[in-house]
Amino acid sequence: PAKATKKKVGGARLWMRFDRGGQSELNEWDKNAIIKRAAIPARDLRILGPIFSHSSSILAREKAMVVNLEFIRAIITAEEVLLLDPLRQEVLLFVDQLRQQLPHKSLSKVDGTNAEQDNEGHFPNSGRWLPVPEAVEGLQAELPFEFQVLEIALEVVCTFLDSSVADLERDAYPVLDELAMNVSTKNLEQVRSLKSNLTRLLARVQKVRDEIEHLLDDNEDMAQLYLTRKWIQNQQTETLLGTSVSNSLVSAAPNLRRLNSVRSRSGSLVSNHFNYYDVEDLEMLLEAYFMQLEGTRNKILSVREYIDDTEDYVNIQLDNQRNELIQLQLTLTIASFAVAVETLVAGWFGMNIPCTLNHKHGVFWPFVLCLTVGCIMLFLVILGYARWKKLLGS
Amino acid sequence: PAKATKKKVGGARLWMRFDRGGQSELNEWDKNAIIKRAAIPARDLRILGPIFSHSSSILAREKAMVVNLEFIRAIITAEEVLLLDPLRQEVLLFVDQLRQQLPHKSLSKVDGTNAEQDNEGHFPNSGRWLPVPEAVEGLQAELPFEFQVLEIALEVVCTFLDSSVADLERDAYPVLDELAMNVSTKNLEQVRSLKSNLTRLLARVQKVRDEIEHLLDDNEDMAQLYLTRKWIQNQQTETLLGTSVSNSLVSAAPNLRRLNSVRSRSGSLVSNHFNYYDVEDLEMLLEAYFMQLEGTRNKILSVREYIDDTEDYVNIQLDNQRNELIQLQLTLTIASFAVAVETLVAGWFGMNIPCTLNHKHGVFWPFVLCLTVGCIMLFLVILGYARWKKLLGS
Amino acid sequence: PAKATKKKVGGARLWMRFDRGGQSELNEWDKNAIIKRAAIPARDLRILGPIFSHSSSILAREKAMVVNLEFIRAIITAEEVLLLDPLRQEVLLFVDQLRQQLPHKSLSKVDGTNAEQDNEGHFPNSGRWLPVPEAVEGLQAELPFEFQVLEIALEVVCTFLDSSVADLERDAYPVLDELAMNVSTKNLEQVRSLKSNLTRLLARVQKVRDEIEHLLDDNEDMAQLYLTRKWIQNQQTETLLGTSVSNSLVSAAPNLRRLNSVRSRSGSLVSNHFNYYDVEDLEMLLEAYFMQLEGTRNKILSVREYIDDTEDYVNIQLDNQRNELIQLQLTLTIASFAVAVETLVAGWFGMNIPCTLNHKHGVFWPFVLCLTVGCIMLFLVILGYARWKKLLGS
Amino acid sequence: PAKATKKKVGGARLWMRFDRGGQSELNEWDKNAIIKRAAIPARDLRILGPIFSHSSSILAREKAMVVNLEFIRAIITAEEVLLLDPLRQEVLLFVDQLRQQLPHKSLSKVDGTNAEQDNEGHFPNSGRWLPVPEAVEGLQAELPFEFQVLEIALEVVCTFLDSSVADLERDAYPVLDELAMNVSTKNLEQVRSLKSNLTRLLARVQKVRDEIEHLLDDNEDMAQLYLTRKWIQNQQTETLLGTSVSNSLVSAAPNLRRLNSVRSRSGSLVSNHFNYYDVEDLEMLLEAYFMQLEGTRNKILSVREYIDDTEDYVNIQLDNQRNELIQLQLTLTIASFAVAVETLVAGWFGMNIPCTLNHKHGVFWPFVLCLTVGCIMLFLVILGYARWKKLLGS
Amino acid sequence: PAKATKKKVGGARLWMRFDRGGQSELNEWDKNAIIKRAAIPARDLRILGPIFSHSSSILAREKAMVVNLEFIRAIITAEEVLLLDPLRQEVLLFVDQLRQQLPHKSLSKVDGTNAEQDNEGHFPNSGRWLPVPEAVEGLQAELPFEFQVLEIALEVVCTFLDSSVADLERDAYPVLDELAMNVSTKNLEQVRSLKSNLTRLLARVQKVRDEIEHLLDDNEDMAQLYLTRKWIQNQQTETLLGTSVSNSLVSAAPNLRRLNSVRSRSGSLVSNHFNYYDVEDLEMLLEAYFMQLEGTRNKILSVREYIDDTEDYVNIQLDNQRNELIQLQLTLTIASFAVAVETLVAGWFGMNIPCTLNHKHGVFWPFVLCLTVGCIMLFLVILGYARWKKLLGS
Repeated sequence: PAKATKKKVGGARLWMRFDRGGQSELNEWDKNAIIKRAAIPARDLRILGPIFSHSSSILAREKAMVVNLEFIRAIITAEEVLLLDPLRQEVLLFVDQLRQQLPHKSLSKVDGTNAEQDNEGHFPNSGRWLPVPEAVEGLQAELPFEFQVLEIALEVVCTFLDSSVADLERDAYPVLDELAMNVSTKNLEQVRSLKSNLTRLLARVQKVRDEIEHLLDDNEDMAQLYLTRKWIQNQQTETLLGTSVSNSLVSAAPNLRRLNSVRSRSGSLVSNHFNYYDVEDLEMLLEAYFMQLEGTRNKILSVREYIDDTEDYVNIQLDNQRNELIQLQLTLTIASFAVAVETLVAGWFGMNIPCTLNHKHGVFWPFVLCLTVGCIMLFLVILGYARWKKLLGS
Repeated sequence: PAKATKKKVGGARLWMRFDRGGQSELNEWDKNAIIKRAAIPARDLRILGPIFSHSSSILAREKAMVVNLEFIRAIITAEEVLLLDPLRQEVLLFVDQLRQQLPHKSLSKVDGTNAEQDNEGHFPNSGRWLPVPEAVEGLQAELPFEFQVLEIALEVVCTFLDSSVADLERDAYPVLDELAMNVSTKNLEQVRSLKSNLTRLLARVQKVRDEIEHLLDDNEDMAQLYLTRKWIQNQQTETLLGTSVSNSLVSAAPNLRRLNSVRSRSGSLVSNHFNYYDVEDLEMLLEAYFMQLEGTRNKILSVREYIDDTEDYVNIQLDNQRNELIQLQLTLTIASFAVAVETLVAGWFGMNIPCTLNHKHGVFWPFVLCLTVGCIMLFLVILGYARWKKLLGS
Repeated sequence: PAKATKKKVGGARLWMRFDRGGQSELNEWDKNAIIKRAAIPARDLRILGPIFSHSSSILAREKAMVVNLEFIRAIITAEEVLLLDPLRQEVLLFVDQLRQQLPHKSLSKVDGTNAEQDNEGHFPNSGRWLPVPEAVEGLQAELPFEFQVLEIALEVVCTFLDSSVADLERDAYPVLDELAMNVSTKNLEQVRSLKSNLTRLLARVQKVRDEIEHLLDDNEDMAQLYLTRKWIQNQQTETLLGTSVSNSLVSAAPNLRRLNSVRSRSGSLVSNHFNYYDVEDLEMLLEAYFMQLEGTRNKILSVREYIDDTEDYVNIQLDNQRNELIQLQLTLTIASFAVAVETLVAGWFGMNIPCTLNHKHGVFWPFVLCLTVGCIMLFLVILGYARWKKLLGS
Repeated sequence: PAKATKKKVGGARLWMRFDRGGQSELNEWDKNAIIKRAAIPARDLRILGPIFSHSSSILAREKAMVVNLEFIRAIITAEEVLLLDPLRQEVLLFVDQLRQQLPHKSLSKVDGTNAEQDNEGHFPNSGRWLPVPEAVEGLQAELPFEFQVLEIALEVVCTFLDSSVADLERDAYPVLDELAMNVSTKNLEQVRSLKSNLTRLLARVQKVRDEIEHLLDDNEDMAQLYLTRKWIQNQQTETLLGTSVSNSLVSAAPNLRRLNSVRSRSGSLVSNHFNYYDVEDLEMLLEAYFMQLEGTRNKILSVREYIDDTEDYVNIQLDNQRNELIQLQLTLTIASFAVAVETLVAGWFGMNIPCTLNHKHGVFWPFVLCLTVGCIMLFLVILGYARWKKLLGS
Repeated sequence: PAKATKKKVGGARLWMRFDRGGQSELNEWDKNAIIKRAAIPARDLRILGPIFSHSSSILAREKAMVVNLEFIRAIITAEEVLLLDPLRQEVLLFVDQLRQQLPHKSLSKVDGTNAEQDNEGHFPNSGRWLPVPEAVEGLQAELPFEFQVLEIALEVVCTFLDSSVADLERDAYPVLDELAMNVSTKNLEQVRSLKSNLTRLLARVQKVRDEIEHLLDDNEDMAQLYLTRKWIQNQQTETLLGTSVSNSLVSAAPNLRRLNSVRSRSGSLVSNHFNYYDVEDLEMLLEAYFMQLEGTRNKILSVREYIDDTEDYVNIQLDNQRNELIQLQLTLTIASFAVAVETLVAGWFGMNIPCTLNHKHGVFWPFVLCLTVGCIMLFLVILGYARWKKLLGS
């Protein structure tokens, strides 16, 4: 059936696999291989597919965490990370970070000298999940493997979004100030594309933020993300019950789940302790990134607010300028009217109809003067009327 | 009374019936027949009626699920699907999918070879509900019949909505860019009808999305949807209590419901196990489609955002163009005014009133030149004033 | 003191009383009579008063339900309905429905032939509240008296609102399309009054909808509405405790309430059964009308959306038309300017100042031609400039 | 230290004290006197201070209720009311109501004849809190002293807000209709100040409404407001425990609080009864005023909606009028252009350049006629073009 | 490794340390020193870093409270306050307040004379956490050290925000009223920068407000903030269990946390008492500042509302003024048209084409008069038409 599978699925995709020690390898796996490896339902793989390319989600499954944060699409289990499309430009940064931090951390356990690293030194400790108090040593709670990876992913994504927003901010303010100074089609086009970018970026930040908020709101979901813990609990349960589980952990999963639920209801001290202790760890982790995203989002919102204010300003400014244009035009119209009236009078005397003035010498200049004074009077009267009506300003 | 019923109800409607094996048959049933068959209150049938034609809902009843998703109106029980108006254009796709996937799935159990199918292979297993761990085999949790049908319905509806949105997007962007280039009544009309379509489509997507979110928020409602499980629990309860139930399951329903509620309070291990296990299945199913609808909705919202941005752009652009028009008009008004003044002066000398210049030869051209230079000066002075007032741009 | 009461209260109001059998009688009762009859606090009567005439509420009290839905103001107890202002136009429909359906239902139990009625046949059964399973017979859960009345009230109100919305829709679309075609003060006035109507209608629909949603959200409130059940429980409790209650049920109410609360904490099987069973009945009833109101509300919202879109359209359309007007005006201004310039030149030669051309014969027509060609060139140059500036379109 | 206190605090403020019997006295108390009297933390006194003058809140403290509703600032204990600034204009109404209703009610217990009073007759009964069923007599639940005062305060505040809104409504509609008829600076100014008033009034109504909603949402907070009940419970607890409490109730408060919390966890019948019973009383009281405020708020919102609609109307109306103005102007521009062209032609023949027509007799009138007809043709052609372009209407 | 640390971390920052007695000292600590001192995860220090400079948060950690309120960034433990950047202008006020109030309070316990201080006298009492009732003495609940500091921080921040808002209000109203009087680019610029300030200030107030609301909504989070109580509980637990804890409290923290969670589930009287008692204290503290911030926020919102109203006013006002300008222009256009017509007629008779009037004497003035009367008639006719069309007002 393997052959048939290959044919049907066709598009095997490129995955990169990281283990706990930071060792990575590239593989082409098809859908079913992944499903078997991570023990997730086929439906969840769709979430990593192209339909959800602009969506963000962190899903907790029985033995894996399906992470789709912006460009990072990965399946994280207690043992390894499966990273989709690892060669994309943006993902490479994530790969680098994984390579840098994961082995570093495993080593740190050995020599213990680089505890002073700048990035929150997490010391993975595969043995710490034994429920003995002695395992806890050192000031800082150490994160299990899956959360180390999750933190790196969140770090990379938040940094990426933050720098995108910084780019946007750097572009936005000059463009907007230029628009406020001078409205032109070019500036308007720039602001329009700025708004599109902003809306898109806001949607992306919001999606990541909402997903984290959603997790923070639901303790049960967070507890589901403790893959390492769940794995150890399953191990213990098996020993406890003395059942001969098949050596494949995967096929036993559903059973264990049931047993877990039973046990969790019996409210034993052990499971309670575990539940309480570690959701707090994850909560603190997510809270920090939630706050960072919240800050990023606020920056975008304040840019949007600035755009709105600028548009309001431009609208009123354009309206005001138009009124001033029309006011000047009106003044000219009044003057033109006075001139037209005088032209009319001049026209009268240009007619070839005999008139008593036709032969009077010396009246020309006085006549023209009177006419002109009359017209200026007309102009001033109408202008005064307009000012009295408050239509023309000071 | 059967005869009387027919007469009274009149509008018997066309239903298509699918059983677990994918066998379908067309029937004309009236209201009461359906009520008896599915054991739902008459009120619920109204939800499938024309009043709610644009509404979406998934209701859990004692022995059936009333599904009204866009064009798909069906009553799903643990045994069969009753599909209303199966011959409508859009519904045919659903019928096809049901035919393809339901038998396929039942067969899959027999030969087991097509487990690698691309659509999430669900293996209906009528015997799996016995609470023995051996029943669970294979990587993937298999869905009971009612959820298989629900998933197909959601799949069909989501695909339909997605393609509607894709159509809308394909139409929208050219129209909007054209409007941004050139405002005309035709373009405005197109954008207006685009907005109507968008609003309508958004309302439809939102309704389906809200209904799924509503279900996801309420574990009790989700548990109510496990029809097959409820049926098996009832069976067990009857055996347990040793009561001689009537051979009609339907009439015994109310009793069982009470017993269930009693039992569920007693918090026995069995029912707890059931509750916990399967709500997760349904949650995962609904979550996936919720995310897809969320993505669809976001696409629509971003189109709407784009429309709003374009309208803002067009508004400012029109305002700005108007100001530029008025600026050119103002320039011309100034020039016209200068010309009018010169015409007036020419008019003076056209009067039939004797003037000293009348007989001076050789002054014509110098006079005209001076006059014209004077007018051009006048033009430039007023223009300069307008520019100084920032009314005319560079 | 009865006399004093009458005097003080003054405004005794007209009430119509329906009992379980659908028998009705008109009475003038004053405030205190009603308070005694329904055992509600005096404060609740204010809710049926004129202050709350545009509000909607369904309040659960010890022995009565105070219903204020749009025009229907009634107090429903387990035994009877007291309907305020039964002679108002809109209320008459409700009275008719009560008359038709209440006796019908009581009769239906006797002959059982009209079970096929189109409106959800409810069979009131005063004896069914005995907690014996035999009492439940027939497919459909039968509603107690208070919910039958509530359903009729909701039915009447929803139908009324629905038809109001249909009226609104029928009026709105032609008016809006006419506005889009031709903006005039008359059309604007019509749209303005349309918006007022819409806002008012939306507020009314929203109020009823919110009240139902509020009830649906709170199981405790819904349980409080089961008046018949509460009455029977009280009866049983009395028998159980063997206390010699006074023959006035009313005065014993507070005691019983306390006992109930005690009993409900003791979590006995009987009360649990009751609680669970019947809240579902009411939930299903309210859910159906909630969905209908939601649909009605969506219709109004889509009309509002259409109004907004039309106004946006009209705004841009008016702006665009204005620009086109100004463009034509600008073209004419350019032409007028060219004409003015030519007129000026003609004016020069009309001056009575001797010029060399004055006596040249045969130059008239060539001169005029050259002048005209020059002016047309001037016109075309300025027009070309305006087009180059994109101020005048193709 | 008393002397030092006086000096330090300085601003002793005027308080009015009402006891259960409605007896009032005016006192000047400083901060510490009040803190000791009401056993509230000093911080709460700030809430009654000038910073919160436009805020509304009802706070439950150990032995007192701090009420800050609009102008009414009072501290209510189980024994007395301390009312701040009792001589302010608006507060006097509250004082009057307290005087009228408090003694009235205490008397009513004595003669029992005025039970038919119009305002919800509450019968304070200091002895009723003994947990014996005999204490409950009469149809209507009687409110403890603190709720009687609270109800009067709410009544006064709601009435005040309601009448303010009625004033606003009376002013608003004529002003808005006038604005719709005729836009002028005066009308616009009036609408602007109307909007300020509305916003301010809405904020005040909203604050009171939100505070009540907040209380209604939290049963624990409501239970805290039962001061009389808490006092009696404390008394009983002391007797029960047989502890020799100090004769100062105040100093024992913290202890009692602890005991209460212990007792409330032990879930004894007595406390459960108390809790359940009386929160309902308060809930009913607050619900009624919440609905009244909701109605008041809806009135304001509908005024605001009307303002928005009117502004939309005015905006489109002004735009439309402008277009019509420009259309008429355009028509005149076209006519002027035609006249200008004819004037130009006349100007040609007015030139002193010899022309063949100069000496032809009898051609004058035909020539003028032809010219005029030509110009009218020109006018009609351009007008036709404008109409064809839909720029000039019918 | 200390050396390596210094190098790596580099930027050691300036901290000010306050102990319970109000003694302060300045220190330069690097990241790790702080982490060790306050037992917080390194991630939390980022919250005090520059990225979150405009964010506000109060985080509860095992043994410390991380406070980032506007400019105040501090880590508060049960023993001391670590204040970042204590020399910034705004922070100095906070330092002053800490110096004034902290020692004051410790002294107050000794002499007891200054209990009448104006600011809510808190008496830190390190011994009061022993669960003996005798420890509670005095009317007012005394706050533990961490809440005293928190209250001072909130006080300083609220006062600062309040005065910022007061500044904004003082600036805003004159600017807006000036804009309403006279629209000019300068005024528009001022309003635009006013809006930016307002938006920024609103965001800051909102952040502090939201953080407090968030805390108030979650009792568990509030309980986590009781550092002193948690410390004492840990002490007791250790004694209770008789475990030999290491003499470093810090390293034992995780153990204790577990024990706490175990103990808190066991629901012992002691812990219940503690939980209930003190969350109320903090709730009352936060509630007061929440109300103050709510008031501050409402002030900002009402300024924003006023800006919006003013902009609406200005928009309509500008539109209206423009219409009036165009109306006057139209009147002039009509008059100009009449003049142009008369000029045309005069032009006819100025043509050098023989006409019968050419030699008629005495007709000049009558002819001009008739012509002028005709033109005035023409003017009045067109004006009348415009008025009839409602285009020109009274």
